Amino acid sequence: MTHVQIHREELELDEPTLVEGLPGVGLVGKIAADHLVDVYDMTHYGTLRCDGLPEIAVYGEDDPNVLGPVRLYADAERDLLVLQSDAPVSPSAADGFASCLVDWLEANDATPLFLSGLPTEKDGVPDVFGIATGEGAALLDDADVDAPSMDGAITGPTGALISEAQQVGLTSVGLVVEADPKFPDPEAARAVLRTAIGPLGSIEVDTEALVAQAEEIGQAKERLAKQMREAGDESTSAQPLGMYQ
Amino acid sequence: MTHVQIHREELELDEPTLVEGLPGVGLVGKIAADHLVDVYDMTHYGTLRCDGLPEIAVYGEDDPNVLGPVRLYADAERDLLVLQSDAPVSPSAADGFASCLVDWLEANDATPLFLSGLPTEKDGVPDVFGIATGEGAALLDDADVDAPSMDGAITGPTGALISEAQQVGLTSVGLVVEADPKFPDPEAARAVLRTAIGPLGSIEVDTEALVAQAEEIGQAKERLAKQMREAGDESTSAQPLGMYQ
Amino acid sequence: MTHVQIHREELELDEPTLVEGLPGVGLVGKIAADHLVDVYDMTHYGTLRCDGLPEIAVYGEDDPNVLGPVRLYADAERDLLVLQSDAPVSPSAADGFASCLVDWLEANDATPLFLSGLPTEKDGVPDVFGIATGEGAALLDDADVDAPSMDGAITGPTGALISEAQQVGLTSVGLVVEADPKFPDPEAARAVLRTAIGPLGSIEVDTEALVAQAEEIGQAKERLAKQMREAGDESTSAQPLGMYQ
Amino acid sequence: MTHVQIHREELELDEPTLVEGLPGVGLVGKIAADHLVDVYDMTHYGTLRCDGLPEIAVYGEDDPNVLGPVRLYADAERDLLVLQSDAPVSPSAADGFASCLVDWLEANDATPLFLSGLPTEKDGVPDVFGIATGEGAALLDDADVDAPSMDGAITGPTGALISEAQQVGLTSVGLVVEADPKFPDPEAARAVLRTAIGPLGSIEVDTEALVAQAEEIGQAKERLAKQMREAGDESTSAQPLGMYQ
Amino acid sequence: MTHVQIHREELELDEPTLVEGLPGVGLVGKIAADHLVDVYDMTHYGTLRCDGLPEIAVYGEDDPNVLGPVRLYADAERDLLVLQSDAPVSPSAADGFASCLVDWLEANDATPLFLSGLPTEKDGVPDVFGIATGEGAALLDDADVDAPSMDGAITGPTGALISEAQQVGLTSVGLVVEADPKFPDPEAARAVLRTAIGPLGSIEVDTEALVAQAEEIGQAKERLAKQMREAGDESTSAQPLGMYQ
Repeated sequence: MTHVQIHREELELDEPTLVEGLPGVGLVGKIAADHLVDVYDMTHYGTLRCDGLPEIAVYGEDDPNVLGPVRLYADAERDLLVLQSDAPVSPSAADGFASCLVDWLEANDATPLFLSGLPTEKDGVPDVFGIATGEGAALLDDADVDAPSMDGAITGPTGALISEAQQVGLTSVGLVVEADPKFPDPEAARAVLRTAIGPLGSIEVDTEALVAQAEEIGQAKERLAKQMREAGDESTSAQPLGMYQ
Repeated sequence: MTHVQIHREELELDEPTLVEGLPGVGLVGKIAADHLVDVYDMTHYGTLRCDGLPEIAVYGEDDPNVLGPVRLYADAERDLLVLQSDAPVSPSAADGFASCLVDWLEANDATPLFLSGLPTEKDGVPDVFGIATGEGAALLDDADVDAPSMDGAITGPTGALISEAQQVGLTSVGLVVEADPKFPDPEAARAVLRTAIGPLGSIEVDTEALVAQAEEIGQAKERLAKQMREAGDESTSAQPLGMYQ
Repeated sequence: MTHVQIHREELELDEPTLVEGLPGVGLVGKIAADHLVDVYDMTHYGTLRCDGLPEIAVYGEDDPNVLGPVRLYADAERDLLVLQSDAPVSPSAADGFASCLVDWLEANDATPLFLSGLPTEKDGVPDVFGIATGEGAALLDDADVDAPSMDGAITGPTGALISEAQQVGLTSVGLVVEADPKFPDPEAARAVLRTAIGPLGSIEVDTEALVAQAEEIGQAKERLAKQMREAGDESTSAQPLGMYQ
Repeated sequence: MTHVQIHREELELDEPTLVEGLPGVGLVGKIAADHLVDVYDMTHYGTLRCDGLPEIAVYGEDDPNVLGPVRLYADAERDLLVLQSDAPVSPSAADGFASCLVDWLEANDATPLFLSGLPTEKDGVPDVFGIATGEGAALLDDADVDAPSMDGAITGPTGALISEAQQVGLTSVGLVVEADPKFPDPEAARAVLRTAIGPLGSIEVDTEALVAQAEEIGQAKERLAKQMREAGDESTSAQPLGMYQ
Repeated sequence: MTHVQIHREELELDEPTLVEGLPGVGLVGKIAADHLVDVYDMTHYGTLRCDGLPEIAVYGEDDPNVLGPVRLYADAERDLLVLQSDAPVSPSAADGFASCLVDWLEANDATPLFLSGLPTEKDGVPDVFGIATGEGAALLDDADVDAPSMDGAITGPTGALISEAQQVGLTSVGLVVEADPKFPDPEAARAVLRTAIGPLGSIEVDTEALVAQAEEIGQAKERLAKQMREAGDESTSAQPLGMYQ
């Protein structure tokens, strides 16, 4: 039953770029992905029905219609897809999730930009560097994204995604940005959007609003992080996801 | 072997409404469901034989006949079904349970009302809002049930049920009510019965008895909650379920 | 391979009554079952080879021949079977064990009397009540066994047995007796033998010896309870089972 | 793939006796088995390739050739087999291991002598008694080995072996000896060799060396016990097995 | 899907020697293997795609291209292969990994040199000894590598590899070197390279650089060890692997 369910088949996308927004260090991916969905008013395009994703019912302010927790949003004009996630992918489900998503990306000629925070006590503008699979190194070069300055490894669900892309030979890019290891980090999200996602996706992202809301978002994200950590709890309950969007 | 066993095939139900009464935050669902069974003197209609449900033997005061722990009760006149549960569904069994029940609801043209408590330190009458799958948003609109005022997610067995309904496209409604996170909350059950279950099910529910018994029920429910938490214990023993019904 | 192995096919039993003696609260079932085997000098009739039962080698005083840990004893004259167990059934094996035993009971027209202790700080003669599956309620009525005085549930292996009997429609009786939650309780075993097992099995059980040995048995049973708790230990060792028989 | 690999098919054994030497209480079985291999200069005859046995590489002093951890040694003249083990069988693997070995014993007309220590604070020469499956009781009687003086059970891998022999009807003997619950106990090994293994196997075992080395062995065995407890550790490392052989 | 993926089929290797470099006690194998890759400027020849290996994305300084965590490097001139690993093999995956690698070694006529540290508080030059499977004992003899001076066992992933080689009859050598149980030990790596890997592989290894960098490497390896211990962490993040190469 593992698959990606598309709700808007009529939308035409031509070799789209996908920005992955799983929650991770500094919530960098989630903040960047949510910002793109918001700023471009992207269309809810699909829902991931991959084995191992949490079976929870997500809802939004002022709209009673329930959504799945991991969704695709599209902007046909910009040939842009965003993967938005309201729940973390559990480590035991990571490999199956990676196959499920990478299979779909391959079949749809999409080029994913995977996002990862590098835990750092940083100072000034966070550094961004890129890693690549398939022909991704050329994309990084064209976009003037730095190579890594030291050896490293990406673990967790995003590591599984990049590893899967590498195994099947899919062209992809992994963007690593210095980020706060303990708190949501909109500044890191902004850096990766401006330095790398913008050039790689041939899009101009207005991140001023992101800066302006940084402090407010920071506070709301702390609540979100707490709720997400608790999403593994067993009792049935409704949980507000925060109001920063 | 996973299925719903019907004991009273002769009862005729026409596109019935089902009220789900799994124990959760504030025991809201269980209190509301038990109250409906009691007040309408509903008929024991079926027993859930879904994989993963606890194999325990349930009995009632003055009646030696053993029942399964998760049962359906029916009121043919009101086209009403209630799911009554004397044991929690474990998280590992939640997805299988959700498929088992939602399959049966689909095959029997039933519209479920799922119930969930939103943990709150509340003041005054608890707020109720609704979420929906399939054509459920129209039902909420007709019944004047509010949409959510902030983003959120429903987890646990009830979240799995709503998620499953959303995946298969079944029309359903999820009712979320502010409830006490630590103790049984008959006041929250009363609010969801009056504000939402009544209008949605086209029934007039007399909840005065519920109010009158609130304090007494509160005390008995505390004992029940304690016993249910202990239901996972390994040794064989008989456990009184409380006497509030 | 899960089955009941019969060693004495030549014994003729006509719709026998089976008394279940799994260790549980107060060791009530085990004490009652062991007493019946002893007092009627019952014949070792069969051995349960159900999946999930512990693979241990049991032996008795002055007899080198090894036995399985869960056995059937028969008294053809009284049409009586007793299930004697020298090891607890683990919770994870309970459902499979229940199917294995109930299948055999059904195929052999046997009517089981399941035994369970109700943890109580009791005073005077312990109360006994009965619950039923299939046509068991009529048996309880004929034998003047009380119905429960409050709602409740039986969990653990005995709960799984009664639940399985209820699901397949086998006539059975569950006897619940107030018992000491921490120590072996021969007084509770005596009460259930006199009040319920005797009338239900149409047998007159001499329990005087049980009373006389109560204190001595109490002491030996404490050692047994300790050893049984330790039966899950990993290292190979021989363990005396106590000498009360 | 589970099987016993024979390296010396040319050795002719006629209804051999097998002495089982798994590590257990007091390391009784291991000490006795190792002593027999040593004293009769037995031939490395086979290796157990049963599912669940630890995949470790065992080596001996002055010989670089790697061995499997659980091996058979043979003395064709005495029709004797010894099972020597350099690693404990884990509880989760015990049932599969028991089937694997008992199947081979049945197919090769071997009669196993299983060994188990009974944890005791003993005084003087340790007591030995025997239990039996199949026709084993007659063997015990011929050899003048006592029956048990109280009820008991043997658990762990040796319990699984005896239980399996009992289920399939293989003639076998279980020898139980009082042993030190905390330290290696060569005195207990000597008692079981002289009192039971000698008569049962129709062999005269010189155990004087065992006595003479008792203190020294005791010290080395303590180190072995410690290492074996640590054999479940995860990191790759070489571990000396001690030098008592 | 479990297999070894070869990237450079055109490289011709004739019955190559493989040096295994999994992280273990003292990181001996990893330090020796990494040194060989570095000193001979070996070619990235293949990637292990064995079930159970961690799905992480590894990258190196100044090169954006992602690598798998366990790789083969080749030097065709010296008929040398090195297995380089940036992540430990988990114990639960060890048996499957051993089959996966040993199958490939057999099919490619390769002779593996497995490396293991023997935890020791050592003094002076660390002792090295060898163990063998198949015809490996002759290789050790030709290369003047000592036999073990006491009994022992190798556990963990390297133990599983040697055990697997022994079971299938593949000629292999296990080299055991005294090593620091708590810290990276380049001195032990140097000893095994000079004493055993050099003669066995018919290669002259320049280990002076290793000595010179010993202190510096020691410091960097401590960081690596810490990161590897944390590689099992669940959250997605980038982790520098250290800069000692």
